[in-house]
Amino acid sequence: MHKKTLMKPDGRFLHLFSRIQIPEGIVATAPRNAGPVPKPHQRWHPLRREWVIYAPHRQDRTFLPPKNYSPLAESKDPDFPTELPAGDYEVAVFENLFPSLNLTTREAPTLRVPTRPSSGVCEVVVFTKDPETALGNLPPERIDLILQVLADRTTELGKVPEIQYVLPFENRGVEMGVTLSHPHGQIYAYSFVPPVQKRFLRSMRDYLSEHSHGLMEAIIFDEMEDGRRIIVQNEFALAFIPAFARYPYETWVVPKKRRGLLSTLSSEELLGLAQVLKVLLQKFDLLWAKPFPYLMTLNQAPVKGEHPYAHLFFQITPPYRSRDRLKYLAGTELGAGIFVNDSLPEEKARELQDVEVPRES
Amino acid sequence: MHKKTLMKPDGRFLHLFSRIQIPEGIVATAPRNAGPVPKPHQRWHPLRREWVIYAPHRQDRTFLPPKNYSPLAESKDPDFPTELPAGDYEVAVFENLFPSLNLTTREAPTLRVPTRPSSGVCEVVVFTKDPETALGNLPPERIDLILQVLADRTTELGKVPEIQYVLPFENRGVEMGVTLSHPHGQIYAYSFVPPVQKRFLRSMRDYLSEHSHGLMEAIIFDEMEDGRRIIVQNEFALAFIPAFARYPYETWVVPKKRRGLLSTLSSEELLGLAQVLKVLLQKFDLLWAKPFPYLMTLNQAPVKGEHPYAHLFFQITPPYRSRDRLKYLAGTELGAGIFVNDSLPEEKARELQDVEVPRES
Repeated sequence: MHKKTLMKPDGRFLHLFSRIQIPEGIVATAPRNAGPVPKPHQRWHPLRREWVIYAPHRQDRTFLPPKNYSPLAESKDPDFPTELPAGDYEVAVFENLFPSLNLTTREAPTLRVPTRPSSGVCEVVVFTKDPETALGNLPPERIDLILQVLADRTTELGKVPEIQYVLPFENRGVEMGVTLSHPHGQIYAYSFVPPVQKRFLRSMRDYLSEHSHGLMEAIIFDEMEDGRRIIVQNEFALAFIPAFARYPYETWVVPKKRRGLLSTLSSEELLGLAQVLKVLLQKFDLLWAKPFPYLMTLNQAPVKGEHPYAHLFFQITPPYRSRDRLKYLAGTELGAGIFVNDSLPEEKARELQDVEVPRES
Repeated sequence: MHKKTLMKPDGRFLHLFSRIQIPEGIVATAPRNAGPVPKPHQRWHPLRREWVIYAPHRQDRTFLPPKNYSPLAESKDPDFPTELPAGDYEVAVFENLFPSLNLTTREAPTLRVPTRPSSGVCEVVVFTKDPETALGNLPPERIDLILQVLADRTTELGKVPEIQYVLPFENRGVEMGVTLSHPHGQIYAYSFVPPVQKRFLRSMRDYLSEHSHGLMEAIIFDEMEDGRRIIVQNEFALAFIPAFARYPYETWVVPKKRRGLLSTLSSEELLGLAQVLKVLLQKFDLLWAKPFPYLMTLNQAPVKGEHPYAHLFFQITPPYRSRDRLKYLAGTELGAGIFVNDSLPEEKARELQDVEVPRES
């Protein structure tokens, strides 16, 4: 993987990635923006015992681009520069212009609850220059490159003293609130291990302390023994709807061996993971012959310290429960934390198993 | 409060409530339904360490009513009976026809993760016979009656040996996935304290063990000292956007004194709470001159044991962040459990403070 780091005119970093040498002379661009410098802060929620991020500047976007302007398109009109310069590269990562987390803010309002600056980093990961495609439609080699990029960004952000946890994710589809259809993901680098990941990791840690194998390895073993919920697999990776899925089409993609960080996978393990991910995403889009929205998170180990119990996994939670019906989160889910799944994982897995993916891919 | 309990033709209970005597001779009705007997079950999520409910029968609804038929309307056509009989009463509660929790199922599938029957009760609370109104438009005396009904149902369900926690809630608006616009709420009675409430209660318990007053009392004191986020209050109750709100318009309505269960409020405290709730809900609807969707949960003490630290509160989380923009839950919220609020509680509170409510109410 080749990599080049540039600085945008407004001081934000831009990282370019490619499988071939990136030529010299690419100049980083940035959209024109007269918005205020972002100063997100956090407030302590004493009942939930977690931090809440306040980023009111995100409403102040004063940038008024022409119709059809996309900040994720390659820059062509010098009057309306985008986030991406023209040039020969494959994948780009840059700091979010409207971050919920940053490393420069030093102040937070004084309130009767604890407050602090919202320390961390928010990045955007542009998967391709083609605005019309999707992650699952990219060649396996490109998906493999994207995984290498996520591994590299996790490693690099992990070197920042303030950062404890790096969460790559993709929101896909207007149903998930996405406003830019250009294929892209995001990275949130937090100054703490977030509550969801803290719970996952604690369960994994407790399990390994009592067994000779990890919790995810036990789940993988059980799923392979049962077989009914497996969507696709190869030597290195497995995609399945877990027996305890909270969403009808919730699917996990895991390396079969216990690896805490993407950066610790061998190159063949990473390619195997990319191949399984691709087939799964293709099946999603083929299921109803339309783009299948989802939230995909990459749950890894924390970036500081040793976490031998951690087993990374992609968790993909599509918001649909059937072709025309969204799964709304309401009373029991949001209010109590108890999910009601109107379908059985075994049945939803069969739907995806039955989808045939063209051979060429 | 007057109350009458009847049994529907299909064996489900119907409870009728009124401020005046309910006449004899009302016969409970039920929609015709050829669906299978519901058998929800639960599966253990080993990473989140919580139960997930599976209720696949909810997709099997075979009942095909005429257009404009509402199961929550008063029965008029004997060929298409509804859930509510004709008669002189104000509020009705009945067991949900498609429950996620019930007390009759004894079986659960055998899987490699722990499973069990989904024990508990799901009820529907019909606030009024008028299908066109809303909770906030009802007279304060009716809202007071509804709170008495919720108190009564919590007490009664609390007597069931299996039940540990009773959660009344209202999903309002199509944005929350509501398909029946007739004003109604729901009650979920769980066989365990759900994870969200467990966290709230643990925070309250820990706080009281170190202070001479409760955590919610401290929050109320702080909010009243600061003053910027208070929407409406009277002698007995307070409505405010907490300093640490996760949603832009998230509002809490609390009795000023520490009360764990609605049933422990004096009649004047309950009426005071109803009055504050009404003004808040009116302000929501007046803010943009359109019905304001929300999820409202009533967080109480568990129904078994003593919980002197518990302080009940209504938590109201509207899904909008501005007139035309929904607050989508995506990567950081659903994936990590860390909320980003694009606005400041102080600013959103001012918007609601500025809404004038007609005097008569």
